[in-house]
Amino acid sequence: MAVVVQNIARADQSVIDRLAACGVATVHEAQGRKGLLASHMRPIYSGARLAASAVTISAPPGDNWMIHVAIEQLKAGDIMVLAPTSPCEDGYFGDLLATSALARGCKGLIIDAGVRDIADLKAMNFPVWSKAIFAQGTVKETLGSVNIPVVCAGALVNPGDIIVADDDGVCVVRREEAAAVADKAEARVAAEESKRQRLAAGELGLDIYGMRERLAEKGLKYV
Amino acid sequence: MAVVVQNIARADQSVIDRLAACGVATVHEAQGRKGLLASHMRPIYSGARLAASAVTISAPPGDNWMIHVAIEQLKAGDIMVLAPTSPCEDGYFGDLLATSALARGCKGLIIDAGVRDIADLKAMNFPVWSKAIFAQGTVKETLGSVNIPVVCAGALVNPGDIIVADDDGVCVVRREEAAAVADKAEARVAAEESKRQRLAAGELGLDIYGMRERLAEKGLKYV
Amino acid sequence: MAVVVQNIARADQSVIDRLAACGVATVHEAQGRKGLLASHMRPIYSGARLAASAVTISAPPGDNWMIHVAIEQLKAGDIMVLAPTSPCEDGYFGDLLATSALARGCKGLIIDAGVRDIADLKAMNFPVWSKAIFAQGTVKETLGSVNIPVVCAGALVNPGDIIVADDDGVCVVRREEAAAVADKAEARVAAEESKRQRLAAGELGLDIYGMRERLAEKGLKYV
Amino acid sequence: MAVVVQNIARADQSVIDRLAACGVATVHEAQGRKGLLASHMRPIYSGARLAASAVTISAPPGDNWMIHVAIEQLKAGDIMVLAPTSPCEDGYFGDLLATSALARGCKGLIIDAGVRDIADLKAMNFPVWSKAIFAQGTVKETLGSVNIPVVCAGALVNPGDIIVADDDGVCVVRREEAAAVADKAEARVAAEESKRQRLAAGELGLDIYGMRERLAEKGLKYV
Amino acid sequence: MAVVVQNIARADQSVIDRLAACGVATVHEAQGRKGLLASHMRPIYSGARLAASAVTISAPPGDNWMIHVAIEQLKAGDIMVLAPTSPCEDGYFGDLLATSALARGCKGLIIDAGVRDIADLKAMNFPVWSKAIFAQGTVKETLGSVNIPVVCAGALVNPGDIIVADDDGVCVVRREEAAAVADKAEARVAAEESKRQRLAAGELGLDIYGMRERLAEKGLKYV
Amino acid sequence: MAVVVQNIARADQSVIDRLAACGVATVHEAQGRKGLLASHMRPIYSGARLAASAVTISAPPGDNWMIHVAIEQLKAGDIMVLAPTSPCEDGYFGDLLATSALARGCKGLIIDAGVRDIADLKAMNFPVWSKAIFAQGTVKETLGSVNIPVVCAGALVNPGDIIVADDDGVCVVRREEAAAVADKAEARVAAEESKRQRLAAGELGLDIYGMRERLAEKGLKYV
Repeated sequence: MAVVVQNIARADQSVIDRLAACGVATVHEAQGRKGLLASHMRPIYSGARLAASAVTISAPPGDNWMIHVAIEQLKAGDIMVLAPTSPCEDGYFGDLLATSALARGCKGLIIDAGVRDIADLKAMNFPVWSKAIFAQGTVKETLGSVNIPVVCAGALVNPGDIIVADDDGVCVVRREEAAAVADKAEARVAAEESKRQRLAAGELGLDIYGMRERLAEKGLKYV
Repeated sequence: MAVVVQNIARADQSVIDRLAACGVATVHEAQGRKGLLASHMRPIYSGARLAASAVTISAPPGDNWMIHVAIEQLKAGDIMVLAPTSPCEDGYFGDLLATSALARGCKGLIIDAGVRDIADLKAMNFPVWSKAIFAQGTVKETLGSVNIPVVCAGALVNPGDIIVADDDGVCVVRREEAAAVADKAEARVAAEESKRQRLAAGELGLDIYGMRERLAEKGLKYV
Repeated sequence: MAVVVQNIARADQSVIDRLAACGVATVHEAQGRKGLLASHMRPIYSGARLAASAVTISAPPGDNWMIHVAIEQLKAGDIMVLAPTSPCEDGYFGDLLATSALARGCKGLIIDAGVRDIADLKAMNFPVWSKAIFAQGTVKETLGSVNIPVVCAGALVNPGDIIVADDDGVCVVRREEAAAVADKAEARVAAEESKRQRLAAGELGLDIYGMRERLAEKGLKYV
Repeated sequence: MAVVVQNIARADQSVIDRLAACGVATVHEAQGRKGLLASHMRPIYSGARLAASAVTISAPPGDNWMIHVAIEQLKAGDIMVLAPTSPCEDGYFGDLLATSALARGCKGLIIDAGVRDIADLKAMNFPVWSKAIFAQGTVKETLGSVNIPVVCAGALVNPGDIIVADDDGVCVVRREEAAAVADKAEARVAAEESKRQRLAAGELGLDIYGMRERLAEKGLKYV
Repeated sequence: MAVVVQNIARADQSVIDRLAACGVATVHEAQGRKGLLASHMRPIYSGARLAASAVTISAPPGDNWMIHVAIEQLKAGDIMVLAPTSPCEDGYFGDLLATSALARGCKGLIIDAGVRDIADLKAMNFPVWSKAIFAQGTVKETLGSVNIPVVCAGALVNPGDIIVADDDGVCVVRREEAAAVADKAEARVAAEESKRQRLAAGELGLDIYGMRERLAEKGLKYV
Repeated sequence: MAVVVQNIARADQSVIDRLAACGVATVHEAQGRKGLLASHMRPIYSGARLAASAVTISAPPGDNWMIHVAIEQLKAGDIMVLAPTSPCEDGYFGDLLATSALARGCKGLIIDAGVRDIADLKAMNFPVWSKAIFAQGTVKETLGSVNIPVVCAGALVNPGDIIVADDDGVCVVRREEAAAVADKAEARVAAEESKRQRLAAGELGLDIYGMRERLAEKGLKYV
């Protein structure tokens, strides 16, 4: 049951770039409010913002062997997504693995466990969204799998799905839906711009969105 | 039971400003070690420090409709305080609502739930203290109330109470007690200054506060 | 049972400095993956990195009296390590105590509880690793002990043990083992350097570490 | 600021008994879905079900002195409600205090902290809803207050309010609203009975409550 | 995007019964240590043990409308599996819904949120595995979906998959793999029986499993 | 660094039995309010109450190999105490291992991780205090140690220390202090008996313990 799937389909880079430009909150809304990873997935430093194709890793608790296997499968522009097979916060990943991943063009790591050497990772500009920061070392004894579907922080991620990540967290977009989601996300961005200007000018959402009547119907009382 | 209280009393701005200058820890001590919101209420960026009058919001889980209603009730210098009616970490608030709130002179948001678009909020200099950062979208289907007493992160907040917030967290001061608390807080700041100088010069708290005798009476042994 | 042990042995400063240079993750590995404090111990600001001799404090929940007692026991280059006798997140420590500790040459604080005045502490360059940031005040009513062995955030810390702390968290090294651990840690740093260069050049860990055969033996399938 | 309020108003016993008969979930609904304490408040044994007038206690962390003070204020049929002034799970209460409370006619304890001697408490038929079961002892050094408004597990409880508690958790009812809530709760129980029979006979809620049309309007698709 | 899938494939009842007989721990092992829901999913009373076909529900936080929709889709022997679209512990389900579900032959509920009326549910012998026990009521305002794949407590559940649940927790088995997993699980039960007898007679696992040599090779020292 | 210490000293059985009779809360108090394991260590079924000599196990996350090694070291009357080297809730222990342990006279298990087959363990009358109930399987790949000092759930446990456990949780007593602690615990039980009778008769703790004067001195106001 320990397998490495070597050839996975990826979305067009242009679509990936469009998703990156829209950001997590907008993409999440554009695809019908789905795909968010749990809120405990936080960036190790602020300001990173990206979209990338997922190379997925299913790994035993406290065992980072499969990250070495996964790195060989990376193509430039990919991101690794690691889900432990049971809850774990050990530090699976640090500066040496980041050096190797960067050499392959990897854009970052999403890990529902721990990470270490974070000062180095920040200096290397290698972003990680993780459940914990923890120096706890791991072993290399038990197999896992690479590029199989995984549930990471409560979200199903298939290999080749697009990961969008920024200071708000992490969102996954199905590869097949990526272009359509990018369309909707960009439309959303455009639509928000005019609203932003009206709101900035002091108009109320109650009026812009026509909410007053429905609030009254529902029974809201002003006293 | 869904009501909007339109006219609430607010403390004098001068008192509010004095509380802001003293900060959370001092104000909390000055009013008898009460009024702190739970430690899970963290700022989305460091360095913000303010005091403001509370416009309170009681909202259902995953439903941000009442924020639109609350914004109409804001006066310049107010802060919104949102308590969900059951535990929730959805992202009730983002850059569009912040734009609208800023246009009304709002100074920030205290929310025992989630917030999103935090890179934008930081760029806008709109501070938020929240339980979570989470992009999860919300609906606008169920009523709540504005300007009723709420329990937010374990603390009772009445509309018009003063919220003091900084990197240490969030504290609420009763409007009726605000001037007296400001007096005590300023006295505390003044008293600390001389102690700070003595401590910096190497004197020990054991001596400055005269603790040695009472420690001995209680039975402390030096070995 | 409330005691203050006044004379504790400390490691050589040169050894302490060598451990500081290696950092938490490396030291933890070098001593056989032991000694880490739990991952909830986070720095109040990023970038601090140190090693120091532990002056330990066992304190009741919500009572910071023993910190005053401990400060008298500090020598230049020490760090305080506070473990509450039951779980607590109150703010035992703030800017006045930090002023006093700094005057004694103290390098920081490790506390499995809360801390406050963090903006001031950052400005003073006084690093703290804590479980919580919380302004909640404490009392001075009940004795504890200074310089006895404590369990802090899941790790046993003896007085005089060396604390290594950085952005990755906190690790404790037994005083008697400190020189040997420093040797191993430095050897590890040296060994990693050549690997880093090879990895940066694009070589794979699979090849550098000769993992392919063992992976195959364990049954890993490439599909 | 440490006060004991000696004379508090209580609701009529007949109203209290009616609320007990309805149970937590029904009472909570009847009063507009408010008043629940957080879900971490669990009974130490299953099967207890009661309503009682609240004698409130605000106590420092790890200090149970005020329980002795509160017991003197108990009248037969009361329940104690203890809120620590900062998060704590120490075992404030055990079999001796329960013996004393029982002698005063006390019906139980609601405590947002820990309790111990739970095998004894179960044998004595003294129910407790608590945040934790923990043997950790407490001190008697610092004052608190009795019969002031407290926020316990996220809910505001005034002295004399009615606590309803069963296997589902704990709910507070304002004393002034108790009779009206009891009316609504009983009406709700009666209304549910006919629905229960129809549902047991196989009718669907979709039909009983006439939901099909609104679901279709909202856009639900059957495929 | 709100859909109800009306016709789902289910596994043979005989296979489902065989999985029920083996229990969660054995089934989980038999299918390669996968499929467990998170450990926070606990039964509301002990002793229930079952396997059943999943009717899945994706529901908004604090909104139980789709349970009514799902009940119509139940066939005798099914179990409902509810995943909220964001973290929630509200009490989506109580005795009335259980009455309706029982009338359709439903065997229980798996819910990554809250449940209430648990004394009634226990009396009705309607088992629930949930994240919380909480009386908090819900609304019926926003659509969700029935019988789509959901991630529930960290595990992917497809409609028609088999849920195995007992005092150890909850496991999901893919419908297509159910027969093969049942075979392996029963083989495992048989194999364990002889080992149990040898262990009960005092033989050591070290000898039965032949571990001594490998332990020595790995470097275990007896002192 | 992976060692098995084969000969450990144990306390006299008579002392162990006396501690068992006193129970966790009393023993904890008698030894100066120290030695409690964290409150998350809960029994898998209620009613068990024991004291036993600790055979300690330090095990990697998700690897139960060392339990097999530890079982060989058990003498009748011992209890196993397992601390994982990093946080883990996997199910290290189930009915087969319990069968083997029971055959050696083992009295139970304390594990800061998970356990499974709990219905069987209850039927076998094999008590376990654990952090989690979780069916997640483990591997047998990496060494740990047996009978070295471990920190389990926040408490230091040396091999041969006495574990006292009941429905209130778990407490550790140093072997060298066991007889003295038993003396104090029994004295405490005796002293409590007279107080219990006075309290049951309606006397107040305020009077029995003479608290009124000190409360007044501290400033308690009755209003």
